[in-house]
Amino acid sequence: MRSGVRVHVGDRLDLGAEIVMNEREAHYLRDVRRLRAGDKVAVFNGTDGEWDATIVNSTRRGATLRVGVQLRSQATEPDLWLVFAPIKRARIDQLVEKATELGVSVLQPVHTRHTVVERLNLGRLRTIATEASEQCERLTVPRVRPPIAVSQLLNDWPQERRLLLCVETGPARPIGELLLEGRTESSTWAVMVGPEGGFALPELDLFLKLPFVTPVGLGPRILRAETAALAALACWQVILGDGSLRPSPSHA
Amino acid sequence: MRSGVRVHVGDRLDLGAEIVMNEREAHYLRDVRRLRAGDKVAVFNGTDGEWDATIVNSTRRGATLRVGVQLRSQATEPDLWLVFAPIKRARIDQLVEKATELGVSVLQPVHTRHTVVERLNLGRLRTIATEASEQCERLTVPRVRPPIAVSQLLNDWPQERRLLLCVETGPARPIGELLLEGRTESSTWAVMVGPEGGFALPELDLFLKLPFVTPVGLGPRILRAETAALAALACWQVILGDGSLRPSPSHA
Repeated sequence: MRSGVRVHVGDRLDLGAEIVMNEREAHYLRDVRRLRAGDKVAVFNGTDGEWDATIVNSTRRGATLRVGVQLRSQATEPDLWLVFAPIKRARIDQLVEKATELGVSVLQPVHTRHTVVERLNLGRLRTIATEASEQCERLTVPRVRPPIAVSQLLNDWPQERRLLLCVETGPARPIGELLLEGRTESSTWAVMVGPEGGFALPELDLFLKLPFVTPVGLGPRILRAETAALAALACWQVILGDGSLRPSPSHA
Repeated sequence: MRSGVRVHVGDRLDLGAEIVMNEREAHYLRDVRRLRAGDKVAVFNGTDGEWDATIVNSTRRGATLRVGVQLRSQATEPDLWLVFAPIKRARIDQLVEKATELGVSVLQPVHTRHTVVERLNLGRLRTIATEASEQCERLTVPRVRPPIAVSQLLNDWPQERRLLLCVETGPARPIGELLLEGRTESSTWAVMVGPEGGFALPELDLFLKLPFVTPVGLGPRILRAETAALAALACWQVILGDGSLRPSPSHA
């Protein structure tokens, strides 16, 4: 029977293909989701859409799945990056989980001058992004990139991608106004939020000189970094992204 | 010196007024924020704006503050309600914190048929709302109302307040489209999100028959309850609320 469980896999998906899961993945199906041989799950790999799969065997050491029919074909998803300074553990976990639900394609941590958290557990963040993708019915998992310095971020920046810099001080365009204007553009987009202490002034100056950067405001309240990011991403999706689409009816 | 600390108080605020803090409030200033006699804080009470205040004495048992000059006068804030089914502890805490940052005026918990969490610690939620208000520079604290049943919610509902019901299945208007249309209306508004398991079908039918209810969609991904609430609130503020205002320059 269909279990409602979705699993992201690395394998190619095709009718009859066999998927071999490692000990950890098998543990998740067996001990967390209580699934056994004969149970069905949905699998996706980010490129081949979503497929029905049946657990053909499941032990403590691993599990094997057999791929059945395709449930959904791969569709184009919004191309929206989130650039963020690392914040405290509980809050960065929320940020990655909810940014994934809100459909970001790339999560790019960046070390700013005021970044307090120096070490980042990329493995943990990737697991959170994968689990949130499984849960929210995405057909992709956002890429969580290794952290880089501001200088490298700006050197490597694709010039045609607009960067909406969420700032609490200084001049800024209201984000709603800017996104509504963006409906007539063919740009690609990114949202950036600074560290808890805000940007250092020389750093902010550097950003504001760049043609692809626009400082944006989210209203009169001082938002925590993760709240600002989620608010900006939600508004982008609703105004410029896929906010008018509905969940696939298969999910119930 | 100014400490950057903001404190919500119950007292009237006026030049020279004395504010007596209890043991718990004094502990926060003394042991958490490390403030001593002579240090300054900003105080607000939800009606008289924000005022400068000086700690005149501080012991383990209590503290006294003397109110100085007014820093900001009280302003009208958006009138936006959030109705939500109780969810698990960590997630409801995030919901209350971030909904406060996003400027809700009322938080109304409601018991739906699929509500799993029966007991709600209102005191804890009110503390979270107060602390988030202090942090985000609001001049009010949102009211966290006691939980009620769906039937009571609907019986007592003010008919002129539109209720945007976030739904994942069935027909729904894209929230962006609806909010943009709302710019020409003089309605008041509320956002409602269901429990993790979604609404029960008879319950959903009941809601959809009511003239003030509009089912809205937030895109193709299945959002967790708290993510859906935050996305809807953020979009409301940016399109219909105070999203084009900037933080008070005094905050830095």
